[in-house]
Formats: sequence, structure tokens, C-alpha cells
Amino acid sequence: MSRAYLDHASTSPLRPVALEAMLPYLTDHHGDPGRLHAEGRATRVALEDAREQVAAFVGARPREVVFGASGTEAINAAVWGAGARGRSQGRTHVVTTAVEHSAVLDSVRRATTDVTEVGVDSLGRFDAAEICAAVRPDTVLVSVQLANHEVGTLQPAAEVCAAARVAGAIVHVDACAAVGHVAVSFADLGADLMSITGHKLGGPKGVGALLVRRGLRLDPFVVGGAQERLRRGGLENVAAAVGFGAACASLAADDRLSAEARDAAALVDRAAVVLAEVGGARFGDPSPSGRLPHLLCFGVEGVEAEPILLARDQHGVAVHSGSA
Amino acid sequence: MSRAYLDHASTSPLRPVALEAMLPYLTDHHGDPGRLHAEGRATRVALEDAREQVAAFVGARPREVVFGASGTEAINAAVWGAGARGRSQGRTHVVTTAVEHSAVLDSVRRATTDVTEVGVDSLGRFDAAEICAAVRPDTVLVSVQLANHEVGTLQPAAEVCAAARVAGAIVHVDACAAVGHVAVSFADLGADLMSITGHKLGGPKGVGALLVRRGLRLDPFVVGGAQERLRRGGLENVAAAVGFGAACASLAADDRLSAEARDAAALVDRAAVVLAEVGGARFGDPSPSGRLPHLLCFGVEGVEAEPILLARDQHGVAVHSGSA
Repeated sequence: MSRAYLDHASTSPLRPVALEAMLPYLTDHHGDPGRLHAEGRATRVALEDAREQVAAFVGARPREVVFGASGTEAINAAVWGAGARGRSQGRTHVVTTAVEHSAVLDSVRRATTDVTEVGVDSLGRFDAAEICAAVRPDTVLVSVQLANHEVGTLQPAAEVCAAARVAGAIVHVDACAAVGHVAVSFADLGADLMSITGHKLGGPKGVGALLVRRGLRLDPFVVGGAQERLRRGGLENVAAAVGFGAACASLAADDRLSAEARDAAALVDRAAVVLAEVGGARFGDPSPSGRLPHLLCFGVEGVEAEPILLARDQHGVAVHSGSA
Repeated sequence: MSRAYLDHASTSPLRPVALEAMLPYLTDHHGDPGRLHAEGRATRVALEDAREQVAAFVGARPREVVFGASGTEAINAAVWGAGARGRSQGRTHVVTTAVEHSAVLDSVRRATTDVTEVGVDSLGRFDAAEICAAVRPDTVLVSVQLANHEVGTLQPAAEVCAAARVAGAIVHVDACAAVGHVAVSFADLGADLMSITGHKLGGPKGVGALLVRRGLRLDPFVVGGAQERLRRGGLENVAAAVGFGAACASLAADDRLSAEARDAAALVDRAAVVLAEVGGARFGDPSPSGRLPHLLCFGVEGVEAEPILLARDQHGVAVHSGSA
């Protein structure tokens, strides 16, 4: 029985083109890209090519891309760096939303006790004006998501960026759930920091990136080396970066992002019709322009999710319940 | 012309057996090991098998292994966690040595300004008694290496562990340079924390582990998820962990660790003889029982290292100078 894997909101399979790009860096080309020898120079070139591919895909400059081990690490680094900067300026207040990924919420709660968590409406959407009204002179960081990772709601992050940056706060956008499923431009968004991950768009697990706006200097989160222009210590995972770059390039080619999003949206729309017939309630924004195209979150009143999940699994369908 | 890659102190090629073990987890088995569906259960089993392989190789219990993205991350996590614990107890003093990897020194300097950095003798070796004499009632952490990453000197870390733990400090041993080249046992060492990495022993880049002694609770460094029993947030990199486990198992099999160490030692000994003829000075401990078998660090008086390195590279030999 062939299985239907419907848990791409958690993680997607590695695209074959990404694995193919990675293999030389898992075999012949193993050198440390910080070395001057031929083995090091070869991986340096590959790493910088991958950086250009990722940057091009998300509308950023290559030097703005700081590779790390995951979206979670990128989020930790964003909040850590902003917090350290704020402490040096005597500012500790952070504005975020109640529906952020736990990496954001846990990082923020570690950085400060002075947090304003803005709520969301019935579609799971926060109000940009409410976020901006919460920004104070001592606000060091505003951290919002570009799309919700559980219900798929697209968020008005760009409006937040414009207003909060005027107020002098650093704006971090968690784009981990969005990138690869809707078009994302770091430049157009106007954020100071943006977190992305490889494995949700068909790149490998074990790689993510923090986009850092040109001119912004942040203390590194992972220390212990001059890698990534002193912004992240530790030997670079060249194969993973190459796979991330190849997945991005593959999505950019022939406007595949749009085509895949269109296909995903059609499937989700069909599923939503069936769901309505069985009396299921759908969470998030039903409007195609208001949500991630591939994500459907629903409930059936009076029914626990976990037994459904296990029954679906036995019938060859992989789904997930609860927080991502 | 076939090349001689002599920069294993930086990073080693992936063992073919490790890549072979990884490939199913880069293709068919891509599920999140935290999920209940079949795709998740399959990777959960693989992850726990890898944990057992790594644990067995370093003389630890599987539950003591916390996988992360690198040795550098493990070191950051050790120092971060110890520092957080110390602050809650009003203790901020850290004892370390002048010859630690920059990941240790940078992490320690970030955690506290109250640091005692113990020096080393002419062989690059610290004195365990000197370390222990520096431990005070307010010492929260003693962080020492098991072997030096630049000159290869084996260190008396076990003596430090016994004495410093009696004094109530947490002891972290950086075993990143040592593991895979000499036998390492977390249990025999008696440390509270030990950092190891995959890529220096023929595992993949992008994976390391922090060994955390049973019963010791530390705040996580990378937050944002319940992975690794709440000790490290972020989706697990199952393929990398599997490769790390396979590399460990391969080294353990047929006592290959001893055989490879013997071969490496023979090559280093021959190189040292040639070096003596050209008037080179060797750094570190010349005694086979006092150093990592595969590491040779030398200088020639009055000669800059970098031009030599580049000339060697043109002749097909990859070496490195300066700090690792």
C-alpha cells in the first residue's frame, strides 16, 4: 500500500536534486572551507555558491546569509543577539505574539521577563497596529512570524517591520514555515533579521540560516571560531548548505514555487470540501490569499486527535496533531 | 598526481560505511522522530540506535548522549548550562586552561569575567594539581581538554575530574580532538560533561554530542522544542546522527581504533625523523603515550608557515598552520 505523507508542515523529504548536489561534499570534497589548501578552497567555493543560491531565493544579499544548523538555531541566534544588544543599551522589552513557534517564545522568555505577547483573531492572525502600539522606547526586539506553522495563516509581518523599525526596535521575522511555500523577500519585507530553514522546502535537515540586514552587528550565539564572518562559530556543514542552496535553486527554476503552491492549494481545497461534509471545523484563514497553500488544520468536535492520527497512520496516511 | 591530505586535525573524510548508513535517511526515511506516524517511528528507532552506538563507543549510557549540530555547539551548551546553574547558586568562577579550543575560551569569557586560565608546560600539558588548586568554593565550572587540538598533547583530565568534582564544581571535558584517536570512556573519566564531534572521526559534519552525566540537570542552550529529552530544541538531524553512530561502530569493530592509531603513529614517527634532519622543531609531547597518535605540529626557525603551507599544497600535500 502506498502511503500518503501529509506532514510537510513538520518536515519534507529531501529533493533528489539537493541530494545529488550534496553527494560530492559527502565523498570527495571534505575539506574545511577555512583552510588555504586545495581541499579547503574547493569547499569554500561550494559554500559561497550555496550562499548565493539561498540569498537569491529569499531576496537577500549573500553576505546577509549566516548559515547555521537549523531554523531553531537561527531563531535562538536572532533573539540572543538582539537581547545582548539591548542589554548594552539598557533596553530589555520584547514584543512578540502568542502564536509564535516555541523556539521564539522560549528564546524570548530566556532573554527577558519584560515581554508583551500580542494575541490573534479567530483566523489566527495578529494585528500589525496592535504590535506597533506595544512598542516602547525601551523595546529592543519585535519578533513576529511570516506565517503560522500550525494553522498556516499568513501574517502582516511587513507592516510590522516598517513601523517597528521607525521606533528603533530590531525586527525579527520567523519565516521558517513560510519560505519555500510562498514568495519571500528579505529586502521587500524590511526586517532586520529573518530566520529560515532548509528541511521544510526540500533541503536537508541540519541547516538553516539567519538573515542579518547589512550594517547590523549582532553578537554571535554559537561562539568559538571566525566562521560566517565571525557571526557563527563551528566548522561549516558544507554538504548541508549545498543541499539547501540546490533546493532553493530548484524552487526558483521555472517558477516551480508557484506551480507547487498551486498544486498544494488544489489538494488542500479538495480536502477542505470533504472535511466540511463530515462536520469538521477548519482552523486558520480559509482564503487562498490568506494562508500557506499546503497547510490544512482541522478538528472534529468531540473527537480526540491522537486516535484519529493513529488510525490514519494504519491506513497509510501520515498526519500530525497538536503543536509543531 | 594523488594528493596527501594531512589535515585530519581539522576534519576527516566521511567513512564510506557512515555514508552508506546515512543514505536511507537522506532518501526514504525522512520523518520527524517526534511524530507518531510510521515515518516518525522509523527515524526514532534509527536515532536511538545511533545514540546507543555513540554511547557505547565513548563509555556512556545512551540517555547521557545529547545530540547537537557540532562539537562547538556541545561546548557552548556545556558552558552555557553550567553558567546558568552557577548564577542560580551565586557562583560565577570558572577554571580553564590557556590552551583550550576557542569554543571553550569564547564561551567561558561570555559566561563570566571571573576566570582562572591555567598555563601549560613546554610540552603543552597542564598540571592537574594546579587546576585543582585554582578551584574555589564559588567555582561553578572546570573546563579542560582531553587532548590538545593543535599539538596533540594528551592531558591529565581524569585527575582533574576526580579532584574538582569533590570540590563541588561541574567538570566539562572537551574530547573533540581526542575521540576516535585514543580510547575515551566518559564513565572512567568521571566528568560531568564531555563534548565530542562526529567529523573528526569519520562521521559527517553537522553533528556532535554533549555527554551529560546521569542525574545532572542543565538548562538547554538551543531552546525551542522537547527534543533530546528537553535538553536541545530543534528537529533532530537523524541522518547525521546515524552517520556518527556508524562511524563510531566502525571504529569499535575489530579494535580498528587501535589499528588506525598504530598506523597513524608510525607515519608521524617517520615524519618526525625527516623533520629532525631539516632542523625542524617539534611542538607537543614526543612520547607516543603522551600525545594523539595522528597529530604532528612543527616549526622551522626563521620560516613563516603560510608560504610553506601553500608550497606544500602545490605539491599535493594539504597541511595547516596556526590555530585550529
